[in-house]
Amino acid sequence: MREFRKLNGSEMNRLCVENYAFTQKHPVFLMLHNIRSMWNVGSMFRTADAAGIEKMILSGYTAVPPRREIDKTALGAQNSMPWEHHPDPFPVIDEMKKKGIAIFGLEITEGSRRYTEVAPEDFPLCLIVGNEVDGIDDNLLSRCDGVLEIPQYGTKHSLNVSVAAGIALFEMVRVVSNKR
Amino acid sequence: MREFRKLNGSEMNRLCVENYAFTQKHPVFLMLHNIRSMWNVGSMFRTADAAGIEKMILSGYTAVPPRREIDKTALGAQNSMPWEHHPDPFPVIDEMKKKGIAIFGLEITEGSRRYTEVAPEDFPLCLIVGNEVDGIDDNLLSRCDGVLEIPQYGTKHSLNVSVAAGIALFEMVRVVSNKR
Repeated sequence: MREFRKLNGSEMNRLCVENYAFTQKHPVFLMLHNIRSMWNVGSMFRTADAAGIEKMILSGYTAVPPRREIDKTALGAQNSMPWEHHPDPFPVIDEMKKKGIAIFGLEITEGSRRYTEVAPEDFPLCLIVGNEVDGIDDNLLSRCDGVLEIPQYGTKHSLNVSVAAGIALFEMVRVVSNKR
Repeated sequence: MREFRKLNGSEMNRLCVENYAFTQKHPVFLMLHNIRSMWNVGSMFRTADAAGIEKMILSGYTAVPPRREIDKTALGAQNSMPWEHHPDPFPVIDEMKKKGIAIFGLEITEGSRRYTEVAPEDFPLCLIVGNEVDGIDDNLLSRCDGVLEIPQYGTKHSLNVSVAAGIALFEMVRVVSNKR
């Protein structure tokens, strides 16, 4: 019988909000376009903080902090994770493209490739996730440099958006960490 | 400008519940022990269905279907995904061990290894996830053959349990799919 003693909070050496701002981030942006559920927004703040990405971009009708429902699942990450609000997603996408940031949708489309095929040369990149029911709008998809797809083996047509974002973000973290 | 046309439901060739029961699954079991939130339970049903794993085991005080709150996030996966209810987790763990199923906790502990280090020879395996606040009970951890940890780079001490389960399960799917 082995002993797996849980680490307590201070043993995990997590960063405080002040220090977090100055640490090197993974070169990933996460864009939430037209996300309906504030629980999903908050959950993605928490995941983005854990993944140590650059920034979140909240666009379309996605709700922005401070909102009680967001705070409840973000658990403070809404204060540590940098974010911007752009009701119109197109100017910020153009701006990112000019800076050499590749735009990837997380969706299942013709021409999408497996999310595990994301490669070190694809970074820096912005991952777009879309509405819980309708996914990413076609006019946003047409601005993407690529679409990443999570293979699914079951009876349902999709994963919960914040679970899908977590799977894709941590794969990206794995890929850029191996590169370093 | 490339066209990434979204696929509709029928183009995705998802399985119906009847056929799902007869398809080969990934050799992974997911144990939910003392999960407080029925939203998380439902979300993990949906993820487990998408990942195409063998079975879910609901233990301790984890709520079981049918419950409106579970159905709301499971979106039907509570009917396609096989599951068992074991208030006491220890007999079912012993039974799995006898069948050669390795038991892994998803937690941050002394002696835990990165979830990306899970290897083809670790399968079949059962992944245990624990309570949203307290994690996996120490007496359950002591029965684990190994503990898998998701590295975290932010200010918070944990991911949402259903996001963490999704990240770990899809890594397992990746590892066993590459093996085939």
